[in-house]
Amino acid sequence: MNTKLTVLTQWIQTSGLDAALITAPDNVFYLSGFLSDPHERLLALAVFPKAEPILVCPKMETEDAKRSGWTGEIIGYTDIEDPWEEIKQAVDRRSVNVKRLAIEKEHLNVERLEKVQMIFSVPELVAAEEKLRELRMVKTEDEMAKIREACRLADYAIEIGVSEIKEGKTEMEILAAIEYEMKKAGVQDMSFSTMVLTGANAASPHGTPGSTKVKRGDFVLFDLGVVYEGYCSDITRTVAYGDISDKQREIYETVLKAEEAAIAASKPGVSCAEIDLTARNIIRDKGYGEYFPHRLGHGLGISVHEFPSLTETNPLLLKPGMVYTIEPGIYVPNVAGVRIEDDIYVTETGAEVLTKYPKTLQIIK
Amino acid sequence: MNTKLTVLTQWIQTSGLDAALITAPDNVFYLSGFLSDPHERLLALAVFPKAEPILVCPKMETEDAKRSGWTGEIIGYTDIEDPWEEIKQAVDRRSVNVKRLAIEKEHLNVERLEKVQMIFSVPELVAAEEKLRELRMVKTEDEMAKIREACRLADYAIEIGVSEIKEGKTEMEILAAIEYEMKKAGVQDMSFSTMVLTGANAASPHGTPGSTKVKRGDFVLFDLGVVYEGYCSDITRTVAYGDISDKQREIYETVLKAEEAAIAASKPGVSCAEIDLTARNIIRDKGYGEYFPHRLGHGLGISVHEFPSLTETNPLLLKPGMVYTIEPGIYVPNVAGVRIEDDIYVTETGAEVLTKYPKTLQIIK
Repeated sequence: MNTKLTVLTQWIQTSGLDAALITAPDNVFYLSGFLSDPHERLLALAVFPKAEPILVCPKMETEDAKRSGWTGEIIGYTDIEDPWEEIKQAVDRRSVNVKRLAIEKEHLNVERLEKVQMIFSVPELVAAEEKLRELRMVKTEDEMAKIREACRLADYAIEIGVSEIKEGKTEMEILAAIEYEMKKAGVQDMSFSTMVLTGANAASPHGTPGSTKVKRGDFVLFDLGVVYEGYCSDITRTVAYGDISDKQREIYETVLKAEEAAIAASKPGVSCAEIDLTARNIIRDKGYGEYFPHRLGHGLGISVHEFPSLTETNPLLLKPGMVYTIEPGIYVPNVAGVRIEDDIYVTETGAEVLTKYPKTLQIIK
Repeated sequence: MNTKLTVLTQWIQTSGLDAALITAPDNVFYLSGFLSDPHERLLALAVFPKAEPILVCPKMETEDAKRSGWTGEIIGYTDIEDPWEEIKQAVDRRSVNVKRLAIEKEHLNVERLEKVQMIFSVPELVAAEEKLRELRMVKTEDEMAKIREACRLADYAIEIGVSEIKEGKTEMEILAAIEYEMKKAGVQDMSFSTMVLTGANAASPHGTPGSTKVKRGDFVLFDLGVVYEGYCSDITRTVAYGDISDKQREIYETVLKAEEAAIAASKPGVSCAEIDLTARNIIRDKGYGEYFPHRLGHGLGISVHEFPSLTETNPLLLKPGMVYTIEPGIYVPNVAGVRIEDDIYVTETGAEVLTKYPKTLQIIK
């Protein structure tokens, strides 16, 4: 059994649970090493205090599960089989009587809950999220190697994007060039839909890339990430095309100052709220508070949005091994949209910046 | 109120429900026209028998929601606000007493169910899935226009992929070229991770593209889809690179015969099981039954996997307006993997094939 699954098993034992049923694909991957996107099909990992765990997956993925290193029992089912009856039998073979069951309350849906209850009639359901979050928030060296590579590739993606900026090019053309080079570099998936936004489009925190053309005097904003062996990166850079106004420059410098201050404040023992407010207060003091409508950042790992969440009210204290984004932004309609985002790794004494593409205001001539 | 929402409202009325809480992003889009990927944040549509519906979304997306045509009430919430209290107030303002509530049991998670129960103490929960599936299975003309365009782009993607096949090119290089051209054509998202598989890789129904190089005597399998204005296509073509063996040719011709027979059998009143078995029996009769381990196909629309499901046990009868894939495959380890997939639209008298890239065995010289 791998270390992560061992730690979860210990938690099950010390919490007096009879089993944990893990169904979120990211948590199944975290605990078993098997990365799968089962769509609407059931993917599950059943873990017990003493008995051998069970992996449940579509039959056509059982070989993939073995290749990914899973050596325990696998229940594979076809599209015309109901896996729940087989799960019950496998649990019965282990002589486990499920009275206290941990589930992911934020993932398990009501229909599956009803199936679980039909089969096991569990009197007590416990949320597994908090423990899984706590485990996943602190990255291992093995995980960090993958995240670092994902960040290196994200830096390269920005480099390509910036080199593609030319008068009249559309957002989608630049985006296509970035993803083409990423695929050629072996990247199978981006962390999320790549964003290349310019002009008025960049002035929305959630703009959609389209046929808007780059023109002088506008910012071009890139927000993208790369998945490397199941781990995500997430970077944003904003560069100017041609000369920009003093107002645009002030917005850029304010965002950069906020971002760098939040990085400098990142170290063990500081709360997420303090980090958020370090950046937010700089933006507020410059009078742009209302134009920064989102949290400062989010944890990053197997999921592109995980814990910790960097909001101005989250009292959670930073710990060595945590990885999160710092991404302040200012979006003034019809003036400018600027966001700068790095991925941060909390060390014993401070923080390391994993994404390294330069941040000094870059003016493409 | 648009037609789809009107039909759902009528169902709520005739079913004696007090409200429906819709939380799956695809269903929210279907009913409201607002397409959003809220990640872990709450996106919801509350619909009532008589009162005005409510859309709930992250605050930074409220403008997008309005732009997408939503004219009703919107509850926008920031990352530090809990939307549930506001939902309760909005429901109270409508003087609705929620005793019978429809939810998507396959989407609503246990944590949100607990929130709903904390606020409304609903005595009776009803599954909304069956009705939503029934509605979504039959496409409107407006939906078909989008699906047709998604299919046209998918045909074009295959054309590009086939034109990129050359000795020594890797799966990922070909894949990159396809997606590059798609982005340039304005495509923002593929329906799922594009697959380009060759040699041993293609002989797994769920292979992953990588650095395997195309070589003479192998098949190259493309499985891909395009999202156009929120609607998906899904196509698979397998072509030969250089001369192939008689065995490979027999496998190809068997899959093609099975696929065409299933298309020919598609018409209103025939069951999904009959369609599956039409193809499956042809493959079984040739002795390849065990090498066709998945269902024949799946519905297609806003989701790349929706209803109907074409399995050998599904008694559901086809109706005009349904759209689904037909995608038989034979995967013989170390010999060949072939899958051929089209998107089918059930008409009043038969079926129309929406994907049109040729299927006669193509041998790239």
